[in-house]
Amino acid sequence: MTAIGVFDSGVGGLTVLQSLRTAFPEQAFVYLGDTARLPYGSKSPTTIRQYALQNLRFLADQKVQAVVAACNSASTQVTESVWEGLPVYNVIDPGVQAATAASANGRIGLLGTRATVESEVYQRRLQDQALRLGRELHVFAQACPLFVPLAEEGWVDDPVTNLIVFRYLQPLLSQGIDTLIMGCTHYPILRGSIQRAAGNAVTLVDSGQVLARELERDFSAGRLQPGPGPLRVMMTDLSDHHVHWARELLGLDEAFALEKVDL
Amino acid sequence: MTAIGVFDSGVGGLTVLQSLRTAFPEQAFVYLGDTARLPYGSKSPTTIRQYALQNLRFLADQKVQAVVAACNSASTQVTESVWEGLPVYNVIDPGVQAATAASANGRIGLLGTRATVESEVYQRRLQDQALRLGRELHVFAQACPLFVPLAEEGWVDDPVTNLIVFRYLQPLLSQGIDTLIMGCTHYPILRGSIQRAAGNAVTLVDSGQVLARELERDFSAGRLQPGPGPLRVMMTDLSDHHVHWARELLGLDEAFALEKVDL
Repeated sequence: MTAIGVFDSGVGGLTVLQSLRTAFPEQAFVYLGDTARLPYGSKSPTTIRQYALQNLRFLADQKVQAVVAACNSASTQVTESVWEGLPVYNVIDPGVQAATAASANGRIGLLGTRATVESEVYQRRLQDQALRLGRELHVFAQACPLFVPLAEEGWVDDPVTNLIVFRYLQPLLSQGIDTLIMGCTHYPILRGSIQRAAGNAVTLVDSGQVLARELERDFSAGRLQPGPGPLRVMMTDLSDHHVHWARELLGLDEAFALEKVDL
Repeated sequence: MTAIGVFDSGVGGLTVLQSLRTAFPEQAFVYLGDTARLPYGSKSPTTIRQYALQNLRFLADQKVQAVVAACNSASTQVTESVWEGLPVYNVIDPGVQAATAASANGRIGLLGTRATVESEVYQRRLQDQALRLGRELHVFAQACPLFVPLAEEGWVDDPVTNLIVFRYLQPLLSQGIDTLIMGCTHYPILRGSIQRAAGNAVTLVDSGQVLARELERDFSAGRLQPGPGPLRVMMTDLSDHHVHWARELLGLDEAFALEKVDL
């Protein structure tokens, strides 16, 4: 019961894993990417929930001490904070809390896939927070369907990417937002372009980094125990593209072997 | 037994349907978009074959006289020209034949999704053609992961799209291609930008248009019978995004009702 499990529908969750590894370099992690069935975003809530529970079950069988749903689509359907005795973390709630805390003027931007934006899950949870805190929050959402392929192409710090980022951000910036949630685990790859287009007066919220702070608190509070150990990366389908991405994002060399698993 | 069935994993096949409707304005068509299970491209060959056969079965039950697999991924797994007595058309073979006929210098470019390019199905069938014709063909392939989201964003004749198209085409143009296959049913939406970047000396091959000519020949030869009638559009999942796209690409008004079906 030492490793922490992290799952995603594909490779986007690797940015979350990498934030956690940076924060806890000695900690053992088991990553599961359900690449055979990606993307989750276009599937029905019932199917997403079923797949997410299969991922949870698989990681529980690996004897992890906690599980992170490092996938916005899965996080919409995994709302429990404990599942069969295991602490469960999602990537939406920490982002919502961090954005609420960061925003001075209560005007928050949200970038996400079309599925995440249309699900309105961030919008609803931000409104719940506003109600709880007795303050007014205005949320301006923008679907960015080009960001995932741009990130996967590796066109980072690229004039084409800058142009597209600026186009997507313009409507949000004109609303005077002071905080911007990157509501998709791929987006931190484009962080440089996003921050440049948004300007330094806008606080970017990165779920992986915020989640690392939440885990930090839970290590201190004893909800989690430090469990040093190696990293394991498993995927339900191992294409060259996904293997390449995992090595690139995690800074692993050719010798690191990814494992193909069936759920 | 009058309508012609057309299926795709989503909305890309609508460009093929639209080419066929333009060529045969009186003909009845039944379109099936398996939007609940898209994309097919990232799935295994066995699964793609299974889904494609379910689509074929569904359209056969609608009493169509022939079926078009208007999806490059499905076309890789549906190689029969007759299935249970029904004529079956795919979008790969007509494109391969048209490109071979159009190319004077035997240097052919291929644009496709990462899945289509990596499957090498176009490359193999072009080499089969070359062998059959006793001539040499050189194929230069380029995966264009940004084209589908650009087309779905509707960023047509847009400076951003022009930049991206030029970047993807540059390596092919530097190889001296004289013919370019648009190996994904979404790409004809970006035809203007692609033709501009390629220049007028390069012949663009559009599967939908080539397929219309093949059906024209089969109507003349009596393999197909003219069957006037209305258009029906069915999808396994009806999101606003897909309904909007179907109306837009087919030039239908708000009154046209799409049907939600289960396979």
